[in-house]
Amino acid sequence: MYEFGSGIWLFGQFVDRYASDGYGPAVTSVGAIEKAGQVPGLKWLDINYPFNSPTETVADVRAALDRTGIRAIAITPHVYMRQYAKGSFTNPDPKVRQAAIDLCKKGIEIAGELNATYLKFWPGQDGHDYPFQADYGRLWDLQLDGIRQVVESAPELQFAIEYKLKEPRNHMTLSTAARTLLGIEEIGAPNLGIVLDMGHSLFAKETPADVLQLVHRRGRLVSVEVNDNLREWDDDMVVGSVHPVETLEFLWALRKIGWQKPILLDQFPFREDPVGAATLSIKAIEGMERLLDRIDKAALDDAMERQDALAAQAIVLKEMVGAG
Amino acid sequence: MYEFGSGIWLFGQFVDRYASDGYGPAVTSVGAIEKAGQVPGLKWLDINYPFNSPTETVADVRAALDRTGIRAIAITPHVYMRQYAKGSFTNPDPKVRQAAIDLCKKGIEIAGELNATYLKFWPGQDGHDYPFQADYGRLWDLQLDGIRQVVESAPELQFAIEYKLKEPRNHMTLSTAARTLLGIEEIGAPNLGIVLDMGHSLFAKETPADVLQLVHRRGRLVSVEVNDNLREWDDDMVVGSVHPVETLEFLWALRKIGWQKPILLDQFPFREDPVGAATLSIKAIEGMERLLDRIDKAALDDAMERQDALAAQAIVLKEMVGAG
Amino acid sequence: MYEFGSGIWLFGQFVDRYASDGYGPAVTSVGAIEKAGQVPGLKWLDINYPFNSPTETVADVRAALDRTGIRAIAITPHVYMRQYAKGSFTNPDPKVRQAAIDLCKKGIEIAGELNATYLKFWPGQDGHDYPFQADYGRLWDLQLDGIRQVVESAPELQFAIEYKLKEPRNHMTLSTAARTLLGIEEIGAPNLGIVLDMGHSLFAKETPADVLQLVHRRGRLVSVEVNDNLREWDDDMVVGSVHPVETLEFLWALRKIGWQKPILLDQFPFREDPVGAATLSIKAIEGMERLLDRIDKAALDDAMERQDALAAQAIVLKEMVGAG
Amino acid sequence: MYEFGSGIWLFGQFVDRYASDGYGPAVTSVGAIEKAGQVPGLKWLDINYPFNSPTETVADVRAALDRTGIRAIAITPHVYMRQYAKGSFTNPDPKVRQAAIDLCKKGIEIAGELNATYLKFWPGQDGHDYPFQADYGRLWDLQLDGIRQVVESAPELQFAIEYKLKEPRNHMTLSTAARTLLGIEEIGAPNLGIVLDMGHSLFAKETPADVLQLVHRRGRLVSVEVNDNLREWDDDMVVGSVHPVETLEFLWALRKIGWQKPILLDQFPFREDPVGAATLSIKAIEGMERLLDRIDKAALDDAMERQDALAAQAIVLKEMVGAG
Repeated sequence: MYEFGSGIWLFGQFVDRYASDGYGPAVTSVGAIEKAGQVPGLKWLDINYPFNSPTETVADVRAALDRTGIRAIAITPHVYMRQYAKGSFTNPDPKVRQAAIDLCKKGIEIAGELNATYLKFWPGQDGHDYPFQADYGRLWDLQLDGIRQVVESAPELQFAIEYKLKEPRNHMTLSTAARTLLGIEEIGAPNLGIVLDMGHSLFAKETPADVLQLVHRRGRLVSVEVNDNLREWDDDMVVGSVHPVETLEFLWALRKIGWQKPILLDQFPFREDPVGAATLSIKAIEGMERLLDRIDKAALDDAMERQDALAAQAIVLKEMVGAG
Repeated sequence: MYEFGSGIWLFGQFVDRYASDGYGPAVTSVGAIEKAGQVPGLKWLDINYPFNSPTETVADVRAALDRTGIRAIAITPHVYMRQYAKGSFTNPDPKVRQAAIDLCKKGIEIAGELNATYLKFWPGQDGHDYPFQADYGRLWDLQLDGIRQVVESAPELQFAIEYKLKEPRNHMTLSTAARTLLGIEEIGAPNLGIVLDMGHSLFAKETPADVLQLVHRRGRLVSVEVNDNLREWDDDMVVGSVHPVETLEFLWALRKIGWQKPILLDQFPFREDPVGAATLSIKAIEGMERLLDRIDKAALDDAMERQDALAAQAIVLKEMVGAG
Repeated sequence: MYEFGSGIWLFGQFVDRYASDGYGPAVTSVGAIEKAGQVPGLKWLDINYPFNSPTETVADVRAALDRTGIRAIAITPHVYMRQYAKGSFTNPDPKVRQAAIDLCKKGIEIAGELNATYLKFWPGQDGHDYPFQADYGRLWDLQLDGIRQVVESAPELQFAIEYKLKEPRNHMTLSTAARTLLGIEEIGAPNLGIVLDMGHSLFAKETPADVLQLVHRRGRLVSVEVNDNLREWDDDMVVGSVHPVETLEFLWALRKIGWQKPILLDQFPFREDPVGAATLSIKAIEGMERLLDRIDKAALDDAMERQDALAAQAIVLKEMVGAG
Repeated sequence: MYEFGSGIWLFGQFVDRYASDGYGPAVTSVGAIEKAGQVPGLKWLDINYPFNSPTETVADVRAALDRTGIRAIAITPHVYMRQYAKGSFTNPDPKVRQAAIDLCKKGIEIAGELNATYLKFWPGQDGHDYPFQADYGRLWDLQLDGIRQVVESAPELQFAIEYKLKEPRNHMTLSTAARTLLGIEEIGAPNLGIVLDMGHSLFAKETPADVLQLVHRRGRLVSVEVNDNLREWDDDMVVGSVHPVETLEFLWALRKIGWQKPILLDQFPFREDPVGAATLSIKAIEGMERLLDRIDKAALDDAMERQDALAAQAIVLKEMVGAG
């Protein structure tokens, strides 16, 4: 069975353009870690830097981690706040691009101090909104160049890009698994890979279990995040709440590649209790793992070998809803 | 437990614009009925008229029904073939509009001869493809006027419209449940209602269980069809293969309104065995019904009353994937 | 030529879940009005209440309007902030529902004091996120009941609902034009109608020019808002930047129904100058109006009567891109 | 100015699952070529093999081409008919996979006899429909292996893959530009590239002008096809009828890369006259080219360099709808 983790933001304050006063009160990074500590089985956090409160220090965060028994799996620099509204690595202003690089390098230090296993790039502001807004070749080069500078500055650390189709930008430059693989291979650094967010994959019209093998086979799978959505937006819902079949298939694919690392949650429970939302997701995954244990692997493999949709579905629907 | 039926097309020949030679050989209406007879538990058919082969008679079809023990639940006139490519009731040519009306009136006779319980309108060619192509008020009037003429000609028979967002037209005039209700109420005939196709509802970005109650409360729910899709097209897949949660919710809503009539399958198993595809869908529904039997109704009602997403999801995910 | 207006939010601070520190600094209502005053030709504002700053008074706002020569066309109560995260009129808590009603009634007073022509309901938090979360019949009843209470309390004032498919809720109860018309007709009050937002209509997979006539014919068209998007989200972009053809068609439809009232802008220029974004939208509409003046109305009407897509497109593409 | 061509299918018979008797009568390949000859300016055809009628020979087709002055730009083998319903190169049955390879090799001969410049792979049946249906790594390998065998058999001929997100399969293996580039680079043959269909690109949620540069920079751009759609399906509509801005941007990008080869039309005018539909598309492109000539390139380049959406949009909207 897997270990579990989550993004620290799952336990923070949610804001959107309508409830601009926030769906709840502000939460410090320490406060978020303490909430995370209430989730049974949650052992890892992907932690944003800068921390939520300007007065919080690495020592504060480390202490909170120690108190809760949680470990930092990743550091995700905040390169998508106001300063980076028009882009981080692709910003038209070279000073802002440099600021993004510098912040990521600072993030490398923090990763070291918190013993995190990778630094995550989430370049959500890199891309474009309107037709004719940008020279796409230039965006691509800027995107890769900024990431390359960071990655090459710390060859001993693992880095990973989390791609997404869009939001906050109308079009993100690193939008899909295949496109991100192209960029990573162009950069050429061995210590750069992908965080595969199952929800982003559904949103990008990919088949998550398919891109999982694609990224894995090229040796670029660094981490996986799970959640659910309606395939039209990054809704970041409870695991399995909309696509339990694809989630099962994703977990099946994780078995096939021999995944041993933690599975991370990436949810935004705007109107729900974060501890409850994370707990339910973990329970759902654990239930699905037991369900997969009951499946006759030889029979399913045989159906897949024959590409026999009905035979495969019969096996899955039997276990999930008692069909047959 | 429900009785089951299906569209006769599930057992026919499938064609699309690529495999224009058909995904399999041509099938007569009698042949399709005989295949339907091989599906355990399938007792009703929605039958297209004209029949698949020009030489088939009502007597032939009736005999096949008698042989298989299947009954005609509905007649669906073929008002979407080549003759109606530019529209049936909304065709710009009044002669074609009249032909559509006449064909439906002929369908009324057939419904009588086969003892079908309703005549279904599937006005898939009524709508528009391009901006500026049509005066939408005129389309709306033509759509309602044609249907009104048919419906008023047989006040003793039940009629029902199957709405869809699009396909084959890029935009269908009767696209959603609410829009179709507006049209039905404008027509004003008591013997006209809706066939709620769960897949069409997902495709139209509706919540199927929600529109079920909306249509039911207005006394316009005539029949329900089930299948699944990826929410972006009318993929007509096996029940529960993509959206088992929404399917469960739809079945739950059917219980709430006290549905007693058959549940019909509307699938297009292009590359699968139709008998197997229908059989699996029925098994999936039966399994889901047993699953619903296990749910603590009071607890779920309480969660819904409080609009408590986590509590409701916990109940459902527990039964479906063993969460918790 | 039309008069123009906009939502006051176009000139405010934008926040989302990523740039939670805002895409720019906070803006008071007075500050937003003053920015609006810099847009040539912008004469009307839809104003949120409560005002942006807790210290701003009606007198402050009125003075700003007087200074800039702008008039209040509508008041939109802020029933979608943190307090209403789980719903305004459909909130499971009757106290919150009452608060929403009370705030709207307060909005009626403000509308009177600012001489606004209508009060707008934007019930963005009314709906559901997850399958099985709510009893949809109950949501529907609560939605209509709350609106009814407000509307009946001020029979002399005009009210209007702005529908949207989703966001911030994953599913809004009043999602489409047809569904909202059903609700309005069920409420039965003569002083309740619809604000038709062209972007929401594209997002809802409607044809904006089509629903414009549908709402108009039923006497429920109160106001129109324009903007653009990618049809998958409410991107609130500059008018005509993605769908100039559908925008032209919408303006053509406005001519057909004899629209005389202002056209309002509803944009969220997260990364652009709001004054520039509004100015460009107005210029685009004015240019499109001149373009429509050049169209041979008889020829276009004839093409539409014949539903001749190519003839209609030839007329439009000739004027827009010089085809032919 | 460009030369123009089209797929021969534009002038053939259209069939779908509803109008299974076809939207018009059957058309031979020779008949389609003769219709194509009626389109002013149309000089190239992408020709399917086997030909439409089993009795048509290469000599017949060559004669028709000679008569009309049209040249074969490409041969597209019919690897998506009934025989290949469960896949061509990815078919679970090795005999069918071999048949697909053999048909493509036969297509290479035909390409030679008709002096076509490339052979196009349109592997629309390669992929999957249901979750759990296939081992995606195996699909990927089969897909590349089959294409590799064909491509390596004729190193002197150019080959090109036309990717698409889906249809007829619910999920195609070669779905996006980036993914197809990954596959092409894995195959490693220098004579294999991409046919970039602008509509497929919109459908895949790409930005067509962006992927154009991506494919071009990697030296894999073989041909371009244009058409329009609603971004949710491959509607194959008249060029510019829905997305004139993105089409302008695509043409702008073609200028930027110095495109000199023909532009091909890929349309399915189900309900329109094919000659008229193709003629209007060519006129639209020609009009757009004249429009682009009027644009101040330095000003637009400057706006794009600054990623200034409003400045860029102002330039485009001025020329297109007379904004400002």
